[in-house]
Parts: sequence; C-alpha cells; structure tokens
Amino acid sequence: MERYTIIENFEPKNDPLLLAKAQSFLPVLKHTEVSPKAAFFLSESSGTANTPVDLDASFSLSLGPGSHICYDFGTHWVGYVTLALSFTGSHPDAPAYIRLQFAERESELYESEENYHGWISKSWIQQEYLHVDKLPASLRLPRRYAFRFLKLTVLDTSRKFSVRINDLSLDAVSAVDLSAVPDVSFEDSMLSRIDAVSVKTLSECMQEVFEDGPKRDRRLWLGDLRLEALANYATFNDLNSVRRCLYLFAGTRFPDDRVSACLFTDGEAVADDTWFSDYALLYPVALAEYIAHSDDREALHDLYETAVFQLDRAVAACDTDGIVSAEDIEAAFIDWAPNHEKSACMQGLFLYTLSYGRYLARKAQDADREKAFAKAQELGRAGARARFWDSTNGAISSGIQDSSAARIWLTLGGVLTQEEAKHALLVLPAEVPLVSPYIHHYYLEALLTAGEKEAALQHLKFYWGGMIQQNADTFWEIWNPEDPDASPYGGTIVNSYCHAWSCSPSYFLRNNLL
Amino acid sequence: MERYTIIENFEPKNDPLLLAKAQSFLPVLKHTEVSPKAAFFLSESSGTANTPVDLDASFSLSLGPGSHICYDFGTHWVGYVTLALSFTGSHPDAPAYIRLQFAERESELYESEENYHGWISKSWIQQEYLHVDKLPASLRLPRRYAFRFLKLTVLDTSRKFSVRINDLSLDAVSAVDLSAVPDVSFEDSMLSRIDAVSVKTLSECMQEVFEDGPKRDRRLWLGDLRLEALANYATFNDLNSVRRCLYLFAGTRFPDDRVSACLFTDGEAVADDTWFSDYALLYPVALAEYIAHSDDREALHDLYETAVFQLDRAVAACDTDGIVSAEDIEAAFIDWAPNHEKSACMQGLFLYTLSYGRYLARKAQDADREKAFAKAQELGRAGARARFWDSTNGAISSGIQDSSAARIWLTLGGVLTQEEAKHALLVLPAEVPLVSPYIHHYYLEALLTAGEKEAALQHLKFYWGGMIQQNADTFWEIWNPEDPDASPYGGTIVNSYCHAWSCSPSYFLRNNLL
Repeated sequence: MERYTIIENFEPKNDPLLLAKAQSFLPVLKHTEVSPKAAFFLSESSGTANTPVDLDASFSLSLGPGSHICYDFGTHWVGYVTLALSFTGSHPDAPAYIRLQFAERESELYESEENYHGWISKSWIQQEYLHVDKLPASLRLPRRYAFRFLKLTVLDTSRKFSVRINDLSLDAVSAVDLSAVPDVSFEDSMLSRIDAVSVKTLSECMQEVFEDGPKRDRRLWLGDLRLEALANYATFNDLNSVRRCLYLFAGTRFPDDRVSACLFTDGEAVADDTWFSDYALLYPVALAEYIAHSDDREALHDLYETAVFQLDRAVAACDTDGIVSAEDIEAAFIDWAPNHEKSACMQGLFLYTLSYGRYLARKAQDADREKAFAKAQELGRAGARARFWDSTNGAISSGIQDSSAARIWLTLGGVLTQEEAKHALLVLPAEVPLVSPYIHHYYLEALLTAGEKEAALQHLKFYWGGMIQQNADTFWEIWNPEDPDASPYGGTIVNSYCHAWSCSPSYFLRNNLL
Repeated sequence: MERYTIIENFEPKNDPLLLAKAQSFLPVLKHTEVSPKAAFFLSESSGTANTPVDLDASFSLSLGPGSHICYDFGTHWVGYVTLALSFTGSHPDAPAYIRLQFAERESELYESEENYHGWISKSWIQQEYLHVDKLPASLRLPRRYAFRFLKLTVLDTSRKFSVRINDLSLDAVSAVDLSAVPDVSFEDSMLSRIDAVSVKTLSECMQEVFEDGPKRDRRLWLGDLRLEALANYATFNDLNSVRRCLYLFAGTRFPDDRVSACLFTDGEAVADDTWFSDYALLYPVALAEYIAHSDDREALHDLYETAVFQLDRAVAACDTDGIVSAEDIEAAFIDWAPNHEKSACMQGLFLYTLSYGRYLARKAQDADREKAFAKAQELGRAGARARFWDSTNGAISSGIQDSSAARIWLTLGGVLTQEEAKHALLVLPAEVPLVSPYIHHYYLEALLTAGEKEAALQHLKFYWGGMIQQNADTFWEIWNPEDPDASPYGGTIVNSYCHAWSCSPSYFLRNNLL
C-alpha cells in the first residue's frame, strides 16, 4: 500500500524567530562507548543455530574472501561505529573489499537488498560496501546506524592476505541518559520488561529531535511526537526536547499555516510537503499536554495561534452537521491498515482534539475560541452519532466500515457512551485489524475512557508483551501478532524495529493508568 | 595463470638512512582541476551507439531510481572526484543510494563485478556504493581513481525525489607537469600520437613513486621503474623521482639483501615478499642508467653495494658453465605469457645486466668487481651458446623452448652475433607469443642491438599504434593484437589501461634510436 504525497514547488512558510528558539533548545547529545558483547558466525538459514565465537578470539581471526563474522552489541543502540582493521599473511597488495550489514534484529541479516522489491527506498537498508586501500586502518564510519547486530563480510582481499578485526567499538548517542529515569517497580515481571523496553525505545529515538525511528525515517513526525512526549514526561521528563519539536512544527509549516505531518531536521528544519489531517490536529493536543505539564507561558504565547489554527481550519471545513470534510478524511493517516475507510475514525479524532483545543483556549483566555470549539464539538458529536452510530443495535451504522479504529476514535471523541464503548471495544471486529503500535496506543486510551482498566492492562501485556516474547530489545514500528512478518512497505528489511510510536507503555504504567 | 608468492613471517630489512633520504625526495604532487568534457547515456550493449547528452543539460537532469548518466573527462586522469549532488521533486525523505563506476576505457562500463571470477582481487574494480543521507551535498570522494569515464547510477531514491548532479569536478594529480616536456616534432603523425600517449601514460603513473599503474597495482615495481626512468629522462627528466625510487628499493629489501620485486609505498615503505630474479638484476641497470644520466656521486656511494650484490648473488649461484641457477630461472618474470620456459631468457638477461654492473664497478673504481663481472659475462656467454644456441642451424637449441623472449634476451645478452640476432628476431616464433608491452620494449631494444632500426620502428608503429587504433588515451598493461581482450587475471575489468611499462616509446623516439 503505497502512501506518499508530492506537492509541486512546495515552499514551506518559515518563522525565523520560532526556528531560532527551537535551535536554542537543541540538546547536547550524550555519548556512551559500547563494545560488542558476543561474536558468532551466522548460520546458513534463519532458525538454525549460529556458531558462537569467543569474543577475544574473534579479534585474531583471519577473514579471507567470502568469510564473515557477526557481532552482537547486547541490545539496540544508535551511533557511530569505529572499526580497527588489520591483516594477516603478507602485506596487503590490493584493497580489502568489505560489506557491512547493520541489523536491529538478527533476522534482518538473512534478508537481502536483492530480494526487496517494496515501495519505500532500499536506501534504508543499513549496509555499506567499503574499499579499504590501506591496512591497518581505523575507520570511523561517517553514517549513523541503529542496530544491535553487525555483520562484516570480506568480499575480497587477494591471495596474499586476510582481514583481521583488531577492534570494534560504538559511540552510541542519545539526547537522554537511561540512568536519569526514576526506578519504578512493577509486581509483574512482564510489565517491568515492557516498561524497560519502552524506555529504551524512547531513549534511542530521542536524538536532536524526537525521531520516529533511528533506522527509518530518522525524522520528526507529529503523530509520533505526541506519544513520545507522553512517555517522556513519565520517564526522562526532558521538557527542552518537547519544546524544541513544538517550536519546529510551528517554525516551518505549510504556506496556509497548516502544520506538516513531519519535518526534516538534519540541517535547517524544513517542513515536508506531507499533510496528515489527523496529525495536524494532534499538534494542539501535544501543545496542550506540554503546557499542562510545564506551564510554559512563553510557549503558549508563541505557539497558540499555530495550534488553534489547525482546529479552526478543520471546524470551518466541516459540513453543517459538524462532520469532518471529505478532504480531511482523505488526508488522515490513522493506521497502516489497508482498505481502511476513515470517516468515522477521523470524526472521532477531530472531536477528541477539540477537547485539547478548549483547554488551550482556556489557558490563553481566548473565550471566543473556547466557545467555538465547544460548539463544534457538540455539533460534531451529535452529527457523528447520527451518521456513524446505530444506537438501536449499539453498533457502527450499516454502510459505514466497522473498523477497530472507528470504534476506538468514536470512543475517544466522546461519541459513544461508556457502556456503548465497553461493548464496542472489548471484542474488536476482524475486518480491518489494528496494525501499528501507534493505533494500539489509542486502543489503550479508548479502553481507559470506557473504564476498562483491566482489559487495557491485559491488552498491553498481550500486544507489547508479544514483541517481548519475540526478543524485542526495543518496540517495533509494526507488530501484528497474527502476521509477525507484516510490513506496510513490501519487505521487513526496511521495517523499523525501534519506533517511537511504540514507546507509550511507560506513559500508561508510570502514571498508574492501568 | 596465477602468479604470486607468499613468504611466511617476512620481515623486510630496512635502512632508515636510505629511507629518510628517499622521503626527502618525495615529490610535491601537482594538481589540475579537470571538468568533464561530455555526457552520455550508455547504450544497452557494447558496440552500439551511446546517446549523447548536452553537458550543461546533464546538470539539470532528474535521475530517478535505475537511471544513470556517464561523463567523459576527455582523456585519462588520476585523481579525486568531487560530486555536488542535489535533488529535484520534494525534499528527500530517504538517503540517495548511488553507484559510481570509474573506467579507464568505456568498455569497462559494460563489465560487472558479478561476472568477474579471476584470480586477482575484485577489489581493484573501481566502483563505490554510496548512501547520501543529506542533499544537497558536496562529496569529495576519499579514494583516488584512474579513469576517463565515470558512470553514476541512481540505485534508489524514494517516490518523492530524484537526484540531480549540480557539478562534477576532478582534482587530477601527478608528480609532473605535461607542459614541462619539450616539444619534439615527428614527421609521422602516428609517431607523434604514440609519443604523446607515452608521455601521458608516464605522467599518470608518476605519483609519489613511479607506480606501475594508477588503477592497479598503484605500486612501485622494479621492472616498470627501469622503463619509466628511461622514458622520464627523455621527457620530464624528473631526476628526484628516479632517485627516490632507487633509494626506496635499497632502503627496504629482503633480509639477505636481495631487492624486492616491488614495494608498498603508501605510508612507510615496505618491501613486498615477492622476489623476481630478473627484476632484481634490473636494479643495477636502473642505477647505472641513473648515474650515467645524473652523475649523482652520492647515490652511487649509497646504492652501489645493494646494486652489485644482486649481480654477485646471481654470479655465485651460476653453475661452472656460467649458467643461471634453476632457482633464478624459476623466479623470473620475463612476461605474462603462459607455459613459458625461461632458462634462455634468464640467461640472456643475466648477461645483459652484467654490462651495467661493469659500468657501475668502473664508476665506483671497484676494479675487482669489474673484472669478476667481465669474467662471469664471458663464461656465461660461452655457456649460453653451448646450451641454448644451435650455431649450425642458427636457431635455439633443440630441447630448449624457442620463445620470442628467449631470442630477445639471448640477443640482448650478447650471446648471438648481429647476423644471428637479425635472423632470430625478424620473424618471431608463434609458440610463446609476447604478451605485455614490457617485453615488447625489450623486443625493440633487441632489434636495435641487431641493427634493425627500421624493423624496430615498424614494430613500434604496429604494436603501440595498435593500441592507438583502439582509442587508447594511455598505453595498456596488456596488449595482444591477436587477442584484444586478453587478461592474465581472468577478466579485463581488472586490467590496467594506463601502465608504466608501456611508456617507453618516448625513450626510443626522443633519443632518435629508431
């Protein structure tokens, strides 16, 4: 399912003052030197046992053409690798030709570029072909990788020498320090593990911005930011990073003041020409939560207009029944599920975000807007019940796609009563399943709205625990327990296995919401 | 035909004083900024016409996944490429994944790593796979390439952007400046062309040392050095470079004082664990010619012992008939021809080099050695006539392989009379052909020794002119007019098409030897 937008000659509207403030909040990355924890020869095929190699012994191996060695850094890291290479045999009389493959999960090492024919770029596959003209050499690779496993294959040397790895180290980076997270003990060891993996996921994604995934896209996405910020308040509580990202979204935006779905932040920040109607509406949500958490009056002053504009626009685009416009439905992301009709989802989401808009307006003493948002919410809820909900049968109206996400968002939008929501959420329909941890976050939120704390806890353990059972060091971009190898891109080799939108369990657990 | 030697735990014997002097002669490389001269799309298959692209227009092309562009830099260059890359379409949302292929001849662009299964390293294939994380980018590639053609293929971008080449330039390097070569006019335009291509070949190979080939091996080989030095005296006359290389060979050598066939000079000079008996004997030849040309008394003093040691050793290893030892025959290079029995060649070469040894001994006022070399030469010539020459039939003795190289070296060694040599050389036997330009140089020398100036001129035009007719910008490592795609390595993609041992035509032409 290809999904991307292109706007010809797109020129973002930049606010230099906001961008300058955002830049002043740039975190200084923390560096951790990490050594490999184990070495092994990868088995011929996935599922069969690797051959362990003593770590010290691995540094005296003679690696001739075609041979390889794998290193396991113990858990997921984001950073810069330095390889000290030498040789055995005669003085090298040719360059050494080497392939490096970086993998978040070991299974990626069995996948290949040649077999990937998906629709997003194979440039995301973390691999390099290197010619090393001179040995010994200490190579600090200039690119940043997100990985736990590193495979080095010697593609060729000459008849006269082999490659030896003298040393290998990783300069791991993050905006935050894991040790800064308060200890919380959970009775259930699975919950402890889920919390720890959430925290690790978040720390890996917190770089110069909240990245969606440090392997891919390494970019600041709005939907991801909101969940990362929630988890961050409950863990690192790095307010500067949240503030920076909120300023960035306001600092470079669509010419008509809509906020972009994502930003490019390597260098000067640039808004992507992608607009997701739901993500834009989550901007006031993220700002409201930040203000509530920080009471940052300056940020409220600087960012308020951008935030409420997103809602103003959506409200104005609604029909007379308070129903979200067709354009907004078309531009909603919601989840990666294919064949997903999103009108009910988008309606619920719109209504949900209006609550945060009302909060912001109240904080800004903008009574007119508070009133307008309340009115729009009231109208939209009534319209939604009429359009999307069959009160008689307590079900999504006939003719409207009965997706899990629709039930979730109608609940969160306050369209359903708590009783209706309980009924709607405890057994989800099979037609359009929930695909990403992102929508599973909103499933938990919805269950809590419906008062189903225990069901939320069980789902947390089932869903995020499922990744733990698959040996996840960090939570994934995509996890479908029914289809563990699902990829929205046409190949798991480009999936991100450390993805910010999966880190919200710590938000639920540490706030005792479950 | 695989040919390489490995000596376990080889430790060269270094003379720090000689190496320090060599280092003091390090040339300062001259830099020339070169722009591409033409652009084109490579045709699907070799032999069909390429599609020219206007050079300026090439810098506004949108290069999407799978597309390519080729640049022609007009002639052969050695240096460092800087690529200014940008994008068209939306802001890049993925790395650009790019392949670069550098080719000395256009035909290399049709060859591939996958189809090369030869015995020397495929690491010599000049190609890179690059991930460019951020565009626009100005990339100065860290490796040095030897090429005329550059093909850039976009392996992948994303659906949202394409790659644009904004600019492309080459920082070409050489120890010498082409404009420093005196103009000489030749009546025959083919001779002018041969001279010009020789000079270009030499200038490309003259880097921090006389390299054999700037694509491969990029190393200082003794047999090549001698021919490069001869051509250099007649053209650039850069005595420092010759002196440097002679000091290097003496400065790092075999533990028993033999000189190595080649040195590694990237960083501290290191002797290779390869000894070619013929190359070692060419060390006194190269030194004698340098002394004769420069009258450098210091070099004679510093290098004399190393030079005469090579001859002393060979003399001492001869049998009582003055015939070169089996070990020396076994270790002779002579040429790349397969199935070559080299006893006669090596005998002639030994006798030839003794003449230079006598010259050096005379210069060094070392009368004992001069006498010893004269005696060895006399004995060896008589022995050679008895063993290798059938005077009755005026032919190589029955039982001895009648190779072209044998006839050449018996001539050069003074074993044959001028009449015998004429007869032996004017029609060469077919059994073991001459393969490399290196042995063709000695064919010309031998023809001149035989007084066959006109035949030498005709052969020069036939052989080196043959490469010119194949559009050579520089002369090649291998050229067999009968088999234009010959490679001693199992694939032309690793052949060197700018090879020092092919540059000697300028020596013959500019010294009016033909």
